[in-house]
Amino acid sequence: MPLLTKDLSVNTPDPNDPVFALHEGGKIEVRSSVEVRDREGLSLAYTPGVARVSQALAEDPELAYRYTWKGNTVLVVTDGTAVLGLGDIGPIGALPVMEGKALLFKDFGGVNAVPICLDTKDVEEIIETVVRIAPAFGGVNLEDISAPRCFEIEQRLQELLDIPIFHDDQHGTAIVVLAALLNSAKVTGRNIADLRVVVSGAGAAGVAVTNMLLDAGIGDIAVADSKGIVTTSRSDLTPVKADLAARTNRAGIEGPIADAIRGADVFIGLSSGKVPAEIVATLAPGAIIFAL
Amino acid sequence: MPLLTKDLSVNTPDPNDPVFALHEGGKIEVRSSVEVRDREGLSLAYTPGVARVSQALAEDPELAYRYTWKGNTVLVVTDGTAVLGLGDIGPIGALPVMEGKALLFKDFGGVNAVPICLDTKDVEEIIETVVRIAPAFGGVNLEDISAPRCFEIEQRLQELLDIPIFHDDQHGTAIVVLAALLNSAKVTGRNIADLRVVVSGAGAAGVAVTNMLLDAGIGDIAVADSKGIVTTSRSDLTPVKADLAARTNRAGIEGPIADAIRGADVFIGLSSGKVPAEIVATLAPGAIIFAL
Repeated sequence: MPLLTKDLSVNTPDPNDPVFALHEGGKIEVRSSVEVRDREGLSLAYTPGVARVSQALAEDPELAYRYTWKGNTVLVVTDGTAVLGLGDIGPIGALPVMEGKALLFKDFGGVNAVPICLDTKDVEEIIETVVRIAPAFGGVNLEDISAPRCFEIEQRLQELLDIPIFHDDQHGTAIVVLAALLNSAKVTGRNIADLRVVVSGAGAAGVAVTNMLLDAGIGDIAVADSKGIVTTSRSDLTPVKADLAARTNRAGIEGPIADAIRGADVFIGLSSGKVPAEIVATLAPGAIIFAL
Repeated sequence: MPLLTKDLSVNTPDPNDPVFALHEGGKIEVRSSVEVRDREGLSLAYTPGVARVSQALAEDPELAYRYTWKGNTVLVVTDGTAVLGLGDIGPIGALPVMEGKALLFKDFGGVNAVPICLDTKDVEEIIETVVRIAPAFGGVNLEDISAPRCFEIEQRLQELLDIPIFHDDQHGTAIVVLAALLNSAKVTGRNIADLRVVVSGAGAAGVAVTNMLLDAGIGDIAVADSKGIVTTSRSDLTPVKADLAARTNRAGIEGPIADAIRGADVFIGLSSGKVPAEIVATLAPGAIIFAL
């Protein structure tokens, strides 16, 4: 895997570089999904025929799910504040990633995805902008928006819109982790209710993974952020983390993440931090490790 | 042309109706424009490869024109207030028309177009929303936004954004009318500077057509709205129409449109009104008529 070893700090595009060559012109396109061969076809797809479809939709907007692309099209929205491992690189920097997401949506799910890269980081402005552009879409996929802002944006949009709101960095990661953990438990013959789990990272993914694992019935979960284990005794927690502290860490362990890892059955890495090998070695025998 | 005679007031979709059958599922899709065959391809198009492209764009946003779809992709933005002959039918009603526009863009121009149907009619909100979602696009096509709001939206967006702003109902119509008029003059052996033109309609299209014809050197143009000929003596004009009155109607004709039509060389219909045949008959011999 030579790509993984490339220096990510190299910024000057080399046209012979296969990554830049592939990205030339972008990775997605908007195409007709119907064939318009002649004048009559045009008068069906566009004027005057389209006027009847428009009028029907104006009377009954639910028909849009049938007679437009709305039913199979999602908005992929980012403000570019938490892009891959790069962090806050802005809307234009985020665009190649959003195009990649759109590619994944269509190639693997058959769903149209429209990347929208926002020129604002203001929570209220993001919310109102998404509400305003939402009518033509069947769902919203929030993407690479930094925590804890992403939690409020997601929740408020769920209240304001009548289409599904999905935050990929939360729910996408969480569902994959839960599926993998259920399978790992089955393969290793363990009951998920008996597992003691350590989640490293209390950002969007860490919070959502923890919540989904709790919902699924995992016995005990300790979450750690960069300051150590998230506990009810800490005074430096955001409201989201304080809420997490109240529902996790049944054993009441305090201190650095190493103290939670000792004897744990599962380690889920969702932070940019690293855990030294000697600490990983203190996990329980046959431990399950997801380094994401 | 049986379609032209169909009753536009029929709102209940008939699944056997060829118009509704063609619109089933929508008329456009977002597709990958690169081929991703395997894991290595994915690591070029998406993570980890894409991180280098994103980082390069964050450092130099102009590179987006080369390494994303930005350079060949426009926003098609409407608030659904002036859709075809239907008027203010809202954003969902407008969607089939916007999808049709996207189809025309790609099939005839090779350009990607993303339809955005806004859930707001507020001029300020439309402007700020377009500014916020603009980064990933190379241009903005304003579509079916009612006059005179469309003039301010267009002008302000031109000031606020560094990408081209095009108002289809103005500039699209105007350029086609000018091209057709130049050709008609050539075919009929006339000089455009000698033509006396009557424009019926002082909405977005009427204003833009008049301005473009004046710029092109048409001799004399009279514009009429639903109240009659637009003249400097009228006190009921919007600022846009008052400006038009000051630059048109060289002959100073007042009253109903029929008074302007008598003896005119060109009639351009850009309103929903109708002109009776006996009035059309009063045009100059060999008159040019564009009933749009």
